[in-house]
Amino acid sequence: MTAHPYLSNPLGHHDRVPLPSPFVFTAGGELREGHLAVETWGTLNAAKDNAVLIYTGLSASAHAASTPQDPTPGWWEDLIGPDRAIDTHRWFVISVNSLGSCFGSSGPGDLNPTTQQPWGKAWPELRLEDIARAGQVVVDHYGVEQLAAVIGVSLGGMVVLAHATLYPGRARHLISISGAMVPSAFAIATRALQREMVGLALNSKELDLGLAFRLARKVGMLSYIGAQLLENRFGHTESALTPGASGTHFEVESWLDHQATKFSSRFNAWSFWSISRAMDLFNLKAHQREMSSHAKTPLGMRLDGALVIGVHEDQLFPLSQQADVAGVLKGENIPTEFVELHSPYGHDAFLVEDHLFSPLLQRYLTQQVAIS
Amino acid sequence: MTAHPYLSNPLGHHDRVPLPSPFVFTAGGELREGHLAVETWGTLNAAKDNAVLIYTGLSASAHAASTPQDPTPGWWEDLIGPDRAIDTHRWFVISVNSLGSCFGSSGPGDLNPTTQQPWGKAWPELRLEDIARAGQVVVDHYGVEQLAAVIGVSLGGMVVLAHATLYPGRARHLISISGAMVPSAFAIATRALQREMVGLALNSKELDLGLAFRLARKVGMLSYIGAQLLENRFGHTESALTPGASGTHFEVESWLDHQATKFSSRFNAWSFWSISRAMDLFNLKAHQREMSSHAKTPLGMRLDGALVIGVHEDQLFPLSQQADVAGVLKGENIPTEFVELHSPYGHDAFLVEDHLFSPLLQRYLTQQVAIS
Repeated sequence: MTAHPYLSNPLGHHDRVPLPSPFVFTAGGELREGHLAVETWGTLNAAKDNAVLIYTGLSASAHAASTPQDPTPGWWEDLIGPDRAIDTHRWFVISVNSLGSCFGSSGPGDLNPTTQQPWGKAWPELRLEDIARAGQVVVDHYGVEQLAAVIGVSLGGMVVLAHATLYPGRARHLISISGAMVPSAFAIATRALQREMVGLALNSKELDLGLAFRLARKVGMLSYIGAQLLENRFGHTESALTPGASGTHFEVESWLDHQATKFSSRFNAWSFWSISRAMDLFNLKAHQREMSSHAKTPLGMRLDGALVIGVHEDQLFPLSQQADVAGVLKGENIPTEFVELHSPYGHDAFLVEDHLFSPLLQRYLTQQVAIS
Repeated sequence: MTAHPYLSNPLGHHDRVPLPSPFVFTAGGELREGHLAVETWGTLNAAKDNAVLIYTGLSASAHAASTPQDPTPGWWEDLIGPDRAIDTHRWFVISVNSLGSCFGSSGPGDLNPTTQQPWGKAWPELRLEDIARAGQVVVDHYGVEQLAAVIGVSLGGMVVLAHATLYPGRARHLISISGAMVPSAFAIATRALQREMVGLALNSKELDLGLAFRLARKVGMLSYIGAQLLENRFGHTESALTPGASGTHFEVESWLDHQATKFSSRFNAWSFWSISRAMDLFNLKAHQREMSSHAKTPLGMRLDGALVIGVHEDQLFPLSQQADVAGVLKGENIPTEFVELHSPYGHDAFLVEDHLFSPLLQRYLTQQVAIS
């Protein structure tokens, strides 16, 4: 058997998958000649039943692990690879840069072909359902009838729920990490404040964009990371640097500055604004209402099993939300494991705490997903 | 016995207490002809041993309860008055507007007499020790040798610790509510981010001051209030209003807008900046090092007893900090009660949850502080 070259790249491969043209958005508006940036690792087998699709967090690219084309470490470098938790000897792993993002996928930072100006505000209103629909285009593109598993973290942990609702039976298993079926009021308040800052810069020039984006990232960081971790790492230590606008220069301020600079230099402000808004507008319960007349279960999902993981210290996606997700999946008659973790990294735990997530994913993929 | 008129106003009295001129700040710099805005309730007895001093939170005035001059409810209206927890039949209650604030006490929003311009950046660097020293001036002004109790909430919960350290034996009891002996890294990060916003407006005009102040207040509100309370109150409900810069208009956004407008219209930006910085620079452990060679206990405090109260859901001043405060007081050989409360209001609980705080204060003041 000879696989198509891009379906057999054990060490990793970058791809660009076209979207249907036009791609019509859930809330209206359309995109012509759009595409998604995709990275894959491993080999799709002849039965095409070993594909695993990964949806990322808000700020990530498709670069979940290093590839020959880009040997820099990916955001899940230690979890994806030969003999790793997501074992590329066994699985054909597909990671997509979300529709609307800025790392190769079509997004509001691109030139609008009609005007030859960046889309900006004219980019159609994005919903998480659109991110899931674009992800399913990639699945179809590779000829995969049924994914072995669809995995999502944070934003992705919400998108997988949209995916399973929109495409019943197209994945056997679902893994939702630090996600939610509807954002909390605190998360909305946090993200809306970030978007207000960025939006004031983008729409009305009341703020300098770079400044707004940096301030917004700082607001976000304070919600992502656990307070205890900041305490352990920085405490009350002042830095040797000259005080800035705050009148002090504690080490925790230097850390926030660094995070803000790193993010604002690599992420597009309109992409941030669009995806952030889509997260706040997400409401799986609304799907529930729409679907209830057509399906046997409230959401009409069809899955062999699900794994839901949450972190006690997560302020932005509190554990009660992952418990809710597990409850909803069980209401769909899906055998569901719910795992509660403790990590001082809070919402960011999945990016850092490989020793917690790796054994969980390895076990679930080996024992539940694989049919050997 | 006839008390001086301003020492016997059961229903409340406003006062303006001069500071020594010059008042020399702890970190250098001085203020001439400064004063504090003070409100009192009740009557100072002949023995002058029934005075209770209250230090407020950052954003509050001395108006803790209504008075004939200002019949609007105070921020602790239901806790202070005849037969209330802080019973004005029994206690002479003194509430001070902190030095550096903007509700009648000298602060950086005042005109600098030398330049006839607002002090602004030229206002001396404020420390919480200065707020305590100015408070003690008020105590001396009323001829009170020893306070029955010194009470502080939030910022005030830190200031009372400075007060007890600077003035051993000048109060019999200390009550610290939602305070800390040193701010957490998370609190520093939050406040430094707020000051960065306000400072960018004040110092370099990179931001509109009103806008900066509103954004900063929103950042603060998200740290003061419990996430569960926002969830219960607002959930995922969208408002009928047209989306603003955030691209959405959830009810939680309307609430944040309202809070931001209310605060920025009544508080002075330089006062906010100065007091916020003083909170971050506070470190009772530093006192500990300075005092250790002179006193029998690490901080040299002399008190008959202390009550420390914290709230589990407080993100900004987490419960572990009040446990630390209680531990330090016990290390001073002070009989100390530590009470842990649960409230969805988080750091703001003391402003709202009268039914929790009222019986605690009533019991402590009646059974521990009063010598009948």
